Amino acid sequence: MTYCVGLRLNKGLVFMSDTRTNAGVDNFSVTRKMFTWDIPGERVITLMTAGNLATTQALVSLLDERSKATIERNPTMLELPTMFQVARMVGATLKEVIEESGPDGQEASTKFRASVILGGQIKGGKPTLFLIYPEGNFIEITEDSPFFQIGEAKYGKPILVRAYDPDMSFEDTIKLLLVSFDSTIKANLSVGLPFDLQIYEADSFKVRECPRIEADDPYFQHISNSWGEALRTALAQLPSYQAD
Amino acid sequence: MTYCVGLRLNKGLVFMSDTRTNAGVDNFSVTRKMFTWDIPGERVITLMTAGNLATTQALVSLLDERSKATIERNPTMLELPTMFQVARMVGATLKEVIEESGPDGQEASTKFRASVILGGQIKGGKPTLFLIYPEGNFIEITEDSPFFQIGEAKYGKPILVRAYDPDMSFEDTIKLLLVSFDSTIKANLSVGLPFDLQIYEADSFKVRECPRIEADDPYFQHISNSWGEALRTALAQLPSYQAD
Repeated sequence: MTYCVGLRLNKGLVFMSDTRTNAGVDNFSVTRKMFTWDIPGERVITLMTAGNLATTQALVSLLDERSKATIERNPTMLELPTMFQVARMVGATLKEVIEESGPDGQEASTKFRASVILGGQIKGGKPTLFLIYPEGNFIEITEDSPFFQIGEAKYGKPILVRAYDPDMSFEDTIKLLLVSFDSTIKANLSVGLPFDLQIYEADSFKVRECPRIEADDPYFQHISNSWGEALRTALAQLPSYQAD
Repeated sequence: MTYCVGLRLNKGLVFMSDTRTNAGVDNFSVTRKMFTWDIPGERVITLMTAGNLATTQALVSLLDERSKATIERNPTMLELPTMFQVARMVGATLKEVIEESGPDGQEASTKFRASVILGGQIKGGKPTLFLIYPEGNFIEITEDSPFFQIGEAKYGKPILVRAYDPDMSFEDTIKLLLVSFDSTIKANLSVGLPFDLQIYEADSFKVRECPRIEADDPYFQHISNSWGEALRTALAQLPSYQAD
């Protein structure tokens, strides 16, 4: 599995993804699940993937190849005028890749499904996020549901539900995401370090480079260790149940 | 779905279960998922169920009927000498119920699977817990994994992993469980109030009656409201990420 979160703040967008890929517990490795395309001053588009690795790599390669080849008939993600149209195009490409691996080919023991979180901003529009399903359709973020998760989403959801605030700073959002990711890796072997991170400041139309968070990152280790202690302290401060 | 937790402490056992049952979001109701049999001074056996309601009701009815009918050949859960043998008998009964609903009968759109947490103590043995699978086999609790969850276990697992301590009091354990259950119901509609609760004090060999925790229970409401605040405070006290 995988764990990726895309989150919209008033200040912009934040993306975080893990990097573990596995085909059984005896076959796992590190792979990037976050990809960014940009035209500085005009658009930044970030994509995170969960699901079958062959499918998601083919998707990213196709998107990338088509955005470079100028002879294709169809406009690419670097040419389409809105994020909505980019989402439609990514959805169609994803569906195409999954169909190609479909029932006509070899029998396989795995599914070829994958999901995508797509986010970014194109000049003239606002920063936004989409959750794209394997069927190629998608939903857009709203104020009522201001973040998307894909992969092993359940462990890390309660803290996001409780602590998300659209006015948060990027720094506090990353802290919150690290707690959510840490809760997940403590409970599920299919999600693992290092984590990739991307901050997009609204109306900046430029990629802000963020270092990958490695397992020995001192900030992450501090958060991971302190959070257990902080939780136990928080719990201790609540009144105990009175049994009869 | 369902959410049930059975937990072993040095002081004894604690069981908590939700009561929501549903066949689609438009068809849900309240049902008890926790059942206790006892012979005061000699044994207390508690069982919690998750899965197909027809299966779990049939299981409980069969166990109950057999423990009352004295003419049956096989010893019942009120006669078997150890918790291990009770677990074998419950597992065999569960397997029998599922097989009866199996592929020979009507085609159905649902599975008939169910899982069980079984716990208690029989004179001569220690308090213990078993997790029984639909196949009828089971695992016993160990010091390394001192609690079992069935149903929607993922949301509420991180707090249990972080805060469980075998030396906890019953009162603090119930507080911890309420936080774990509250995190789950905030994220998943298939788990709901009221919650059933059972405390078993080691070597007491008697049932301790605990009131059902209703949605308007003032203690639960206080925990639910304060925990969000406590989490945000705990998060605020950790240092923020330093973005370049």
